Amino acid sequence: MKKHNFSAGPCILPQEVFQQSSQAILDFNGIGLSILEISHRSKDFVQVMEEARAIIKRLMNLNDDYEVLFLGGGASLQFAMVPFNLMPLQNGEAAYLDTGTWAAGAIKEAKKLGKVNVVASSKEAQYSFIPKDYTVGKENAYFHCTSNNTIYGTQMHHFPKVDTLMVCDMSSDIFSCQRDYSQFDLIYAGAQKNMGPAGVAVVVVKKDILGKTGRDIPSYLDYVQHIHKESMYNTPPVFSVYATLLTLQHLEKNGGVAAVEKLNKAKAQLLYNEIDRNPLFEGFAQKEDRSMMNVSFYLTDDSKKEAFDNAWKEANISGLNGHRSLGGYRASLYNALPLESVEVLVNVMQSI
Amino acid sequence: MKKHNFSAGPCILPQEVFQQSSQAILDFNGIGLSILEISHRSKDFVQVMEEARAIIKRLMNLNDDYEVLFLGGGASLQFAMVPFNLMPLQNGEAAYLDTGTWAAGAIKEAKKLGKVNVVASSKEAQYSFIPKDYTVGKENAYFHCTSNNTIYGTQMHHFPKVDTLMVCDMSSDIFSCQRDYSQFDLIYAGAQKNMGPAGVAVVVVKKDILGKTGRDIPSYLDYVQHIHKESMYNTPPVFSVYATLLTLQHLEKNGGVAAVEKLNKAKAQLLYNEIDRNPLFEGFAQKEDRSMMNVSFYLTDDSKKEAFDNAWKEANISGLNGHRSLGGYRASLYNALPLESVEVLVNVMQSI
Repeated sequence: MKKHNFSAGPCILPQEVFQQSSQAILDFNGIGLSILEISHRSKDFVQVMEEARAIIKRLMNLNDDYEVLFLGGGASLQFAMVPFNLMPLQNGEAAYLDTGTWAAGAIKEAKKLGKVNVVASSKEAQYSFIPKDYTVGKENAYFHCTSNNTIYGTQMHHFPKVDTLMVCDMSSDIFSCQRDYSQFDLIYAGAQKNMGPAGVAVVVVKKDILGKTGRDIPSYLDYVQHIHKESMYNTPPVFSVYATLLTLQHLEKNGGVAAVEKLNKAKAQLLYNEIDRNPLFEGFAQKEDRSMMNVSFYLTDDSKKEAFDNAWKEANISGLNGHRSLGGYRASLYNALPLESVEVLVNVMQSI
Repeated sequence: MKKHNFSAGPCILPQEVFQQSSQAILDFNGIGLSILEISHRSKDFVQVMEEARAIIKRLMNLNDDYEVLFLGGGASLQFAMVPFNLMPLQNGEAAYLDTGTWAAGAIKEAKKLGKVNVVASSKEAQYSFIPKDYTVGKENAYFHCTSNNTIYGTQMHHFPKVDTLMVCDMSSDIFSCQRDYSQFDLIYAGAQKNMGPAGVAVVVVKKDILGKTGRDIPSYLDYVQHIHKESMYNTPPVFSVYATLLTLQHLEKNGGVAAVEKLNKAKAQLLYNEIDRNPLFEGFAQKEDRSMMNVSFYLTDDSKKEAFDNAWKEANISGLNGHRSLGGYRASLYNALPLESVEVLVNVMQSI
């Protein structure tokens, strides 16, 4: 019996992607070779990379002003790459919104390369909400925000209009809901939530914002170098790119972002309704900033902990423990999680 | 019928690794979840990471002065990470041996952070040999060399004794032959030749050489950060680490580096003997510096090209074309390539 996988990431992907990528390791495209042993310069893989780059632009409805890159190092490397590419060498300043652990990580790296103006922070409230009243001055080269905060279960449902470049870390909610992606100049995301397995990060960047900082950027950290080589500056993470392509093809084939948004809303609503209805449970995030992807919650009665833990484990649920910094529980409802899994969880919550 | 895969990398891996990793995508360790959907903090993956780090130290016969890291970004990111971590901020100098395209790539990145002394270069001879007469002065913080040059088919069969730290890029010949690994202070290698699939690089570093440059290093580029987090500073490339572990377990189970060195010597000898014997073929590299991993060669009679190309393709050989910068042919004889594949190639060479 398949598990109900609520893991915060790496996380559940479509079953079809497991089948297809498992098969490609034995024989890729019927060429008699494994996807793991082919050259990244081979016709078959070049086509994978081209399709993967194209499908992202299609799903985001972006024009050719944007380029898509598949890079190693995860979103954590992007924390450094963003200021290397966008923070001016001379008196550079950038604005950051501090909404959680990952936003703070991005701030830490940017401070190594320039002046960081933290325009607002919810740290004092344990990041339980998304700050909304702030302004972003023109002295900033860019504004950086994190659209979804995996640990705390908060999500930006609105983005500010700013007079600077707009950068967003969408690692944990990319392609989960419809968005005007053209309001951003640079988007990055680790693949391992809604897009694919761990091992690759996607960067979507407006070409004309690059090459203006006056910095001598390490080549691997320079978006321009990767763009010149069509995301093949060096050997890319071949398998992770391929599995990401499969995941996005699955998304597109099943109605795209609009369809999965509807499903994600239904899943989130079902679970939040139970949390609000059932006195045994309490949500962590402020209601208006609740995430559709990660639901962090607590038991209100500690004496029920053992019963609850036993019950969800018996129901074949996995990955429900909260992040070590927050405790409690966290149910991650990424694209590939079926509604049925949430129903099973809600039944367990009602049973104790 | 399985192909004879001479690809220069990503390249052939043991068939057992394809079987095992394909199965793990459907069900990992019998836990009812795919290796692609489990948390990198799960017990099962933490064990993979621990074993993968341990097996590398075991195969290298290194003590606890060394740490092993699995990082994203490939060897190309290491070109930058090495000087970030070892080149002093104030008047830093480092010595580099220029033996090919990848050595030159490493030199380019180091120049961004300090003074690079290229102690010797075979560039004028199209990198057809390994320079041997050079000295490395004590003004250099470290000496950097590339043990095997994939494109040209040259290999360092001896390493100099130097009074500085010793850094080696072993991307294309790691674990192919016995070496005293303790002569190096830092070893790095992209996994996608003898170790595993693309998407991860291995770094083996002596702990006490770190933290001395005075630089404020971007966190992802800082070996110390990765060591503190036991190579889980952020989400690692889970699948690539797992397939690397499987490949190294296969190596260890089959007699380790000593056994595979014997096989690799037999393969190389068979092919070089044919090149030297057959007037239709000519090797590229100087004989004393010939690589056991990559054999670059030419046809001496261009009119035979079509016949030769047809013959090896008919024999189910793939990946034999030379690198675009050199032309001709290149047969890569990595660990997982069976002797039988070289026999098939030699038969084809004798048939035209």
